[in-house]
Amino acid sequence: MRQRNEARRLDILRAAARVFRRHGIAAAGMREIAEEAGLSSGNLYHYFSGKDEILLFCQERSLARMQAAVAAASGGATARLRAVLRAHVHSMLDDMEGTTAHLDVEALPARMRAQMIERRDAYERALRDIVADGMRQGEFARGDAGLVTRAMLGAVNWTARWYRPDGPQSVDEIADGLADYLVKGLA
Amino acid sequence: MRQRNEARRLDILRAAARVFRRHGIAAAGMREIAEEAGLSSGNLYHYFSGKDEILLFCQERSLARMQAAVAAASGGATARLRAVLRAHVHSMLDDMEGTTAHLDVEALPARMRAQMIERRDAYERALRDIVADGMRQGEFARGDAGLVTRAMLGAVNWTARWYRPDGPQSVDEIADGLADYLVKGLA
Repeated sequence: MRQRNEARRLDILRAAARVFRRHGIAAAGMREIAEEAGLSSGNLYHYFSGKDEILLFCQERSLARMQAAVAAASGGATARLRAVLRAHVHSMLDDMEGTTAHLDVEALPARMRAQMIERRDAYERALRDIVADGMRQGEFARGDAGLVTRAMLGAVNWTARWYRPDGPQSVDEIADGLADYLVKGLA
Repeated sequence: MRQRNEARRLDILRAAARVFRRHGIAAAGMREIAEEAGLSSGNLYHYFSGKDEILLFCQERSLARMQAAVAAASGGATARLRAVLRAHVHSMLDDMEGTTAHLDVEALPARMRAQMIERRDAYERALRDIVADGMRQGEFARGDAGLVTRAMLGAVNWTARWYRPDGPQSVDEIADGLADYLVKGLA
């Protein structure tokens, strides 16, 4: 039951992502999302209390996938960084289909925002720790770990702005290509 | 007279950028922008017919600086790419003080949007041409010039999301650090 619920929520999330991309987050309404998901409005409200909750689910889900990748990464800094960057791109594009909804912390109501910002910051610190670790160990050239981390985050987050599900490259190819390029700049 | 007008319009742009950052583009009104710029509303309307025109000026200005950098760049692909990336960061942060208003093509009314998208695409192509040229000449390793260009654009555009005018690094240091890292990944 719980699992079925979760699968349905994920379907709704994908539908919402398409609506967000078409209309923008601000203009998207629960009615359009219900229609896109093939549900009645009443049925949609059974799964989500409103657009804010869909947005929060969206952001929590993508961040959870990224944090899981940090926790699972093993080996040297190069291997760990590649794994996290690849997971980041996948978590952005697999479910979200190129919407920036999962990045738009500002779109959340204030009471949800502070917590998300804190979790995002923790994820950024974890990524920076991998970079700094690689610099200390001599795997990467010395440099400004914070600035480089933000450059990497920008590069992977930006995929949401240009990715098209019907484009020429698979998510896997994009993830691989970006991880290659971004890690190479640290050599 | 014209010059004085232009200087005043730029002051208003900076004030608008601060308001956009505080309240978001959608919520910012002409009244707040006038207040932040130290003008009466009537006086503000003397310089801009509305928020849309401020947004358009903002986007046209930053793109014009970037395109000028492409036109002015000379030397090998490495030198040209570095120059354009540095100018890009400057054009994002010098006037805009960390708002994403100049990226938000979606926030423009439809009649202004198409033209801006076309100009943005032309700029992206020019950047990609430098990368592809460097790959052909052997200055850069062979690779997917389009993907790498988008990664670079993401990294530099993302500065608008995290830059703070009162942060520890100057715009010049940020521009240099990013150009170094992003060009190195092509070696």
